[in-house]
Amino acid sequence: MVNETQHTCSASSSSKSDGGSSSGSESSKDSSRCSTPVLDADRHERLREKMRRRQDSGDKWFSLEFFPPRTANAAVNLISRFDRMGAGGPLFIDVTWHPAGDPGSDKETSSMIIANTAVNYCGLETILHMTCCNQTKDDITGHLQKAKRLGLKNIMALRGDPVGEEWEEEVDGFNYAVDLVKHIRNEFDDYFDICVAGYPKGHPEAESYEADLRHLKEKVFAGADFIITQLFFRSETFLKFMKDCQAIGITCPIIPGIFPIQGYHSLRQLVKLSKLEVPQEIKDVIEPIKDNDAAIRNYGVELAVSMCRELLDSGMVHGLHFYTLNREVATTEVLKRLGIWKEDPRRPLPWAVSAHPKRRVEDVRPIFWASRPKSYIYRTQEWDDFPNGRWGNSSSPAFGELKDYYLFYLKSKSPREELLKMWGEELTGEESVFEVFTCYITGEPNKNGHKVTCMPWNDDPLATETNLLKEQLEKVNRRGILTINSQPNINGKPSTDPIVGWGPSGGYVFQKAYLEFFTSSEIVTALLKVLKKYELRVNYHIVNVKGQNITNAPDLQPNAVTWGIFPGREIIQPTVVDPVSFLSWKDEAFALWIEQWAKLYEEESPSRMIIQYIHDNYYLVNLVDNDFPLENCLWQVVDDTFELLN
Amino acid sequence: MVNETQHTCSASSSSKSDGGSSSGSESSKDSSRCSTPVLDADRHERLREKMRRRQDSGDKWFSLEFFPPRTANAAVNLISRFDRMGAGGPLFIDVTWHPAGDPGSDKETSSMIIANTAVNYCGLETILHMTCCNQTKDDITGHLQKAKRLGLKNIMALRGDPVGEEWEEEVDGFNYAVDLVKHIRNEFDDYFDICVAGYPKGHPEAESYEADLRHLKEKVFAGADFIITQLFFRSETFLKFMKDCQAIGITCPIIPGIFPIQGYHSLRQLVKLSKLEVPQEIKDVIEPIKDNDAAIRNYGVELAVSMCRELLDSGMVHGLHFYTLNREVATTEVLKRLGIWKEDPRRPLPWAVSAHPKRRVEDVRPIFWASRPKSYIYRTQEWDDFPNGRWGNSSSPAFGELKDYYLFYLKSKSPREELLKMWGEELTGEESVFEVFTCYITGEPNKNGHKVTCMPWNDDPLATETNLLKEQLEKVNRRGILTINSQPNINGKPSTDPIVGWGPSGGYVFQKAYLEFFTSSEIVTALLKVLKKYELRVNYHIVNVKGQNITNAPDLQPNAVTWGIFPGREIIQPTVVDPVSFLSWKDEAFALWIEQWAKLYEEESPSRMIIQYIHDNYYLVNLVDNDFPLENCLWQVVDDTFELLN
Repeated sequence: MVNETQHTCSASSSSKSDGGSSSGSESSKDSSRCSTPVLDADRHERLREKMRRRQDSGDKWFSLEFFPPRTANAAVNLISRFDRMGAGGPLFIDVTWHPAGDPGSDKETSSMIIANTAVNYCGLETILHMTCCNQTKDDITGHLQKAKRLGLKNIMALRGDPVGEEWEEEVDGFNYAVDLVKHIRNEFDDYFDICVAGYPKGHPEAESYEADLRHLKEKVFAGADFIITQLFFRSETFLKFMKDCQAIGITCPIIPGIFPIQGYHSLRQLVKLSKLEVPQEIKDVIEPIKDNDAAIRNYGVELAVSMCRELLDSGMVHGLHFYTLNREVATTEVLKRLGIWKEDPRRPLPWAVSAHPKRRVEDVRPIFWASRPKSYIYRTQEWDDFPNGRWGNSSSPAFGELKDYYLFYLKSKSPREELLKMWGEELTGEESVFEVFTCYITGEPNKNGHKVTCMPWNDDPLATETNLLKEQLEKVNRRGILTINSQPNINGKPSTDPIVGWGPSGGYVFQKAYLEFFTSSEIVTALLKVLKKYELRVNYHIVNVKGQNITNAPDLQPNAVTWGIFPGREIIQPTVVDPVSFLSWKDEAFALWIEQWAKLYEEESPSRMIIQYIHDNYYLVNLVDNDFPLENCLWQVVDDTFELLN
Repeated sequence: MVNETQHTCSASSSSKSDGGSSSGSESSKDSSRCSTPVLDADRHERLREKMRRRQDSGDKWFSLEFFPPRTANAAVNLISRFDRMGAGGPLFIDVTWHPAGDPGSDKETSSMIIANTAVNYCGLETILHMTCCNQTKDDITGHLQKAKRLGLKNIMALRGDPVGEEWEEEVDGFNYAVDLVKHIRNEFDDYFDICVAGYPKGHPEAESYEADLRHLKEKVFAGADFIITQLFFRSETFLKFMKDCQAIGITCPIIPGIFPIQGYHSLRQLVKLSKLEVPQEIKDVIEPIKDNDAAIRNYGVELAVSMCRELLDSGMVHGLHFYTLNREVATTEVLKRLGIWKEDPRRPLPWAVSAHPKRRVEDVRPIFWASRPKSYIYRTQEWDDFPNGRWGNSSSPAFGELKDYYLFYLKSKSPREELLKMWGEELTGEESVFEVFTCYITGEPNKNGHKVTCMPWNDDPLATETNLLKEQLEKVNRRGILTINSQPNINGKPSTDPIVGWGPSGGYVFQKAYLEFFTSSEIVTALLKVLKKYELRVNYHIVNVKGQNITNAPDLQPNAVTWGIFPGREIIQPTVVDPVSFLSWKDEAFALWIEQWAKLYEEESPSRMIIQYIHDNYYLVNLVDNDFPLENCLWQVVDDTFELLN
């Protein structure tokens, strides 16, 4: 009877402990006690395993294709789009290879760097396209090595378009995608997941549809893990193709490429490139409305939705791949109407994880970078090990210095003119700075009628969670306690809570109240007197730009301020207030005054000098209320401070 | 103004993070991310640092001296005494070196093994005495190496008594304690803390009191860290000695050796050995009552208390060292009357820690060994690293096998006859076993009028915490759910709670409800049906002696069942239910039926066959209720199971 139940683990898993004490002693030396919490399977599986798991569970998924941008500004926008569209829960995104755009270089617009940013800074599972024709073996190996080093784990192996009319096969060269697949498997073994392209109507240059299917089979048998198809206009086209593939023994996943028609010209261009024919019934609808973009897009959405429904309803399709053309609206609309866009995806941790494989086990970070996760990832990119389970009281966190505040993936989304409208064309004193902070908190427009939707320390509007503290935050910012980070205390809310929840369901999440702000030395003096009354309850850390430094953290140990308790798991404590890291954060937090704000103004201008004064004279303060089950006392601390000053 | 406050850490501690990204990257490779939680400074400081810290904080302390026992039975009793007297909070204990008793051997009565047991199994800071005369350099080095290997960190360096009358100094040999001190420092650098003996009246063989002081100074200057004195009868004797020491430049701690008179004969013997003279006023009191042990002990306690008070009141004495003569009552009485016996010492962790330096960071253990911590320490003694922060899902915990259930430090304190009275001279069926478990839970005498104060899985009476569950436990044991381990759920009680509290004050402790029991396969079948209803809430693990194994633990991950949140610290989670370790524990738990219970009876006897039947056919079950904020559902699970069976 006992063996009937499902959850069994074989008795042999205990055999290692039966080896007697001497062998036990030996094997204990090998046993790594490193923790690998498997809170989120998505962080540990390779792409082909994720696909398999989704297929097994019947969970439908989607993926998104982007091409590299042409300008640095477009790169900033594309990264914001990754963040926004990433929130919908794509299984992966892919970035095309732009042979003309120096695709393997370090330029901010290269395919390689855009894919790197998607993986590392946006935390997205990413496939990098790579074409092989007209490239040497060494070039290609170099690109693959670089991709691996940057944390990319998936390659879409393509032939690419030969240059010129007179193309001839090179002996020993890469003439077809299959050569690239073989090369990757030869040189990198099983490291990469490999995707190849399928042509539902056959490749335009193939001798025949059947010959093309045989080429596809060759690519799969050479080591490809799955297939993404070229776009098509009728679901029957894909379903027939899929059956034909299966009939000749192709068993790997085949993902239909969906192209929502978004405009007359983009459709024409794509059709020209892909040498596909647009069915007459589509032409008939589009031609009369070809100058009405909105009408064409609406039609395109309708068409895509109904085709996707047919595909999903066939039972043969588990995932849909979208050719986004780097646009958001149409694809998002299709996904929402299909019900596979995740409106509120569960967060595995309270912060956005990176998808670099070496960060797979990372589950603890200092709270300071809560609103600047990309900067945190940048400053820790050279680390070999990432903290998990505990932050530890290592004395050398060794954060990389943040020198270049203008890296496109760290840069503000708003241009200079917009920032000036928000933060003031002209500042008249410290009070006008207080006013900017206050407007950011309240969401009210400033006196020139502009809303303050970002700050140097936070490129996004106020978090929903921070909204819980809005009233108090407004009051203190008005008086010169310039808050840049805060969280309320939480005493065991369900892990599924829409605002503060994270991690698997069935758990409970907790927080200690946290408040971080810049303020004047006058206020700090009063604050320190008040803090004496709260010595056992409140941990504080106060530092100025010169590094003058006051804290009551015991032995400079980290203080866990967010943690979660889950069924059948160890405790997860994803954010800590670490006194050592705070000194690295302090450099960045102070520098942002200058780099992002002061530099908007002319040198020597009064506005610039006001910001410079604050930078030189204010203190950065963090406060933690350790008594999380009681009412947050930090507001009382601040009130007491103001009272003392009066 | 800012620099006035006390808690400052120098700005230079941030300098490492200022090294730029390239140097940052390099140093990150060195940075150990290993966590060293300093929850309990006592676990991390060396003895001399602990002394210094107590002296600085004005916290009075005591220490206890024991000699090795003569028989194996006496060793069992001595270890129990270590546990009981350890609960009073001695700063350290010391074990004398018995040259006649093969002191460095592996015998259970040797000085070395007793000290090893005190450190490793009782978790006591321990000083091992060592004498040097009549021993070769190699012998001594061997002893010291062995002591180091066993985790001993402190040596009391003594000359010892020369054998025979005709003793002559050996050239290049060890003639005096100072030679041993030098040898330890030469060969082991600063590894050991070294203690030496001081003679408040001068060593009986010294040329003069002054000459003896000079010898003492030599020992200190050769590398001794502190001094413990020979016993004395008047506080003035010690205080004068201390001043004389200081006058000649001895600045290390000097700890008075206190000898509470416990009987006429022991006093006479000690006086004879130490060549001390008992003051007339003491002789006058003692001689008339020399046959009244209780009266002499009372007098001895009075005398010791008043002398200790004088010493402590002098302001020169911070710690008191007691010559216990391996007895408990008098010393405990003196300590309690002085108010330095800690009635309820705070537990740094919910389980008894080991004092071996390599276990310094250990702060996670599986809950299964909660009542058998010495067995846990034994089975993990060969590990090089101990889990801290996280248990991790290592697939090879590699516990040593527990073959010898009769190791003196693992053995039951009760002799066979007593066990038979408790557990039944003759068993008549499984029900008589249920009865034994029930009596253990209730504390009521069994049908022959004997209380059941221990069980094979628990050598002590029921824990106070378990008392919270007594009523339910009684009910289920009566019906054949034979509980061996349990804890109630706790949703944030203060860390100072007298029953469930642990760790530094100002924190909150939590628990998930846990229940572990043996039961028949009939009950397991019903239980599994009931557990389907609790699938998301209750984690279970069910296994029989053959290793048939059923669990719903996700990915065989550990489940944290005890954790604490403290001011300014990371989360501590000292106990987990680990599915992999459970299979090692299972072997031990099943073997205890046979080793400790069945073997009390004749082979082939009905009683023995009943225990053998249970061993062969019952299952060991553990249940965790993950919903710690709600009412414990495990009793409902058990009730539902019984209902299903009816």
